[in-house]
Amino acid sequence: MAYLAISGPSDATPADAADAEHVARWAAEHGHVVVCGGLGGVMSAAAAGAAAGGGTSVGLLPGPTRDGAAPELTVTIPTGLGEMRNALLVRAADVVVCIGGSWGTLSELALAVRTGVPVVALRTWVPARAPGRLLEVGSAAEVCEALASHLHR
Amino acid sequence: MAYLAISGPSDATPADAADAEHVARWAAEHGHVVVCGGLGGVMSAAAAGAAAGGGTSVGLLPGPTRDGAAPELTVTIPTGLGEMRNALLVRAADVVVCIGGSWGTLSELALAVRTGVPVVALRTWVPARAPGRLLEVGSAAEVCEALASHLHR
Amino acid sequence: MAYLAISGPSDATPADAADAEHVARWAAEHGHVVVCGGLGGVMSAAAAGAAAGGGTSVGLLPGPTRDGAAPELTVTIPTGLGEMRNALLVRAADVVVCIGGSWGTLSELALAVRTGVPVVALRTWVPARAPGRLLEVGSAAEVCEALASHLHR
Amino acid sequence: MAYLAISGPSDATPADAADAEHVARWAAEHGHVVVCGGLGGVMSAAAAGAAAGGGTSVGLLPGPTRDGAAPELTVTIPTGLGEMRNALLVRAADVVVCIGGSWGTLSELALAVRTGVPVVALRTWVPARAPGRLLEVGSAAEVCEALASHLHR
Repeated sequence: MAYLAISGPSDATPADAADAEHVARWAAEHGHVVVCGGLGGVMSAAAAGAAAGGGTSVGLLPGPTRDGAAPELTVTIPTGLGEMRNALLVRAADVVVCIGGSWGTLSELALAVRTGVPVVALRTWVPARAPGRLLEVGSAAEVCEALASHLHR
Repeated sequence: MAYLAISGPSDATPADAADAEHVARWAAEHGHVVVCGGLGGVMSAAAAGAAAGGGTSVGLLPGPTRDGAAPELTVTIPTGLGEMRNALLVRAADVVVCIGGSWGTLSELALAVRTGVPVVALRTWVPARAPGRLLEVGSAAEVCEALASHLHR
Repeated sequence: MAYLAISGPSDATPADAADAEHVARWAAEHGHVVVCGGLGGVMSAAAAGAAAGGGTSVGLLPGPTRDGAAPELTVTIPTGLGEMRNALLVRAADVVVCIGGSWGTLSELALAVRTGVPVVALRTWVPARAPGRLLEVGSAAEVCEALASHLHR
Repeated sequence: MAYLAISGPSDATPADAADAEHVARWAAEHGHVVVCGGLGGVMSAAAAGAAAGGGTSVGLLPGPTRDGAAPELTVTIPTGLGEMRNALLVRAADVVVCIGGSWGTLSELALAVRTGVPVVALRTWVPARAPGRLLEVGSAAEVCEALASHLHR
């Protein structure tokens, strides 16, 4: 069992949301815990996918209360840390999956690489000049294949 | 008086270090407080520049002790937050200057844009696909011009 | 459903551990989530009680890894915050139950009263000169009565 | 040079404020940095004392902005951590001086003893049943004597 962070924008595209749900459902079906930022967009899609897969999801909320938490979450933790909770999300994860591009998502990707947490990236922003430390894939199915290869070896 | 964060790699190039020192000295000479991550490379160069300019510098250290703090710093704060202190650095800043590329620097750039703190970027990693929310400049002198324009208007 | 923090020493007395388990089991049987510091003593007793009651428990660990986490926990979050995680525990709680005395437990009691989170106290340290803002009770059964009265009204 | 945290209530009594100013002035005159929570009462009195002694003071503010910061502070750090910043204050300190009683002050006292930071206590709340791990003194002059003995040996 592993902890899988799913990171992505609150103003997700339909494709981002569908892919986040796909990956979270796969993770739940394989016994993994899904961790996310607890709000809307990719985050609530991840919570919904975990629920659909019969698994557990945890939302680390930026505010000091549970207001705005995705209703499908199993557990919500209001951190009151603001965007500093992005670093907490990365710390709680064995693998970070970034789906879709936003500045918050980029901060989580960068913190993950910085602290040695593996990242699987799908349609997300990556630095133009950085060395290749990310696994970039092209579909939700490829995210799941990468996770299976990494987590189940 | 403003708080100016200078962000950059601990394994800075000589050009990165020289530019960080230049910018920090300018900031100190103009009455601003320099905030940085408190360790080596761009961080210690910023502390040295602030000291040379007769000003105040603050180091927000990742560890729980003052070990490894740049000796030129006026004030050191051991946070024990690990890389989560990157978010604290951004929060303490009126402007963030990124000099040189690293994953930690990128996390600070992303958190700054995410939370609405202006960023001036010199030879740093920027996301390939992100919209233009950064001011990218080509020299330490241009960083200072941008800061003067932003802070002294 | 509410989030119930159970706070107490890692070097718990047998009575502290038994009472923590009793309260956590009651909480789980009534549909509440048990949150604790994730380590031994009162913390692992709370996790065991939640498991015995068929419920969910969350451990907010002080370190950056899951080392030392109580095995009965449903979800573990390594915070890397050190004792700063005591404040996170309080923030995540709708009610804090303090069982047994220690400096860490006292910090959680004080932070809870400071931030307006109700506290039920059983054999814990309380300040000698503070005004009466705590509900002090004499047994685990009385803790559960107080919680029922507070949470189920 | 040492970092001396001065902790106490924002609704300080005149005696609390006068004693905090006395201790901070002594600390500044002896080359120490005064760290405090950055707001009013004992905190602003500590900042004023440090300024009167020609020294440096740092305010670790609970909010995400500098609003409400004591004007006498040399450096202000808006943490956005809420009461979690109490733990940051303790971490930044070589010694914690508690003057006056409040729940926030008690949380800092407890976190300091928990993490091995020496505490000097003047008219503050202490737990009724805790073992003797604090130095309780009766006047600001005795606080300074205790600090001199601890810091200058």
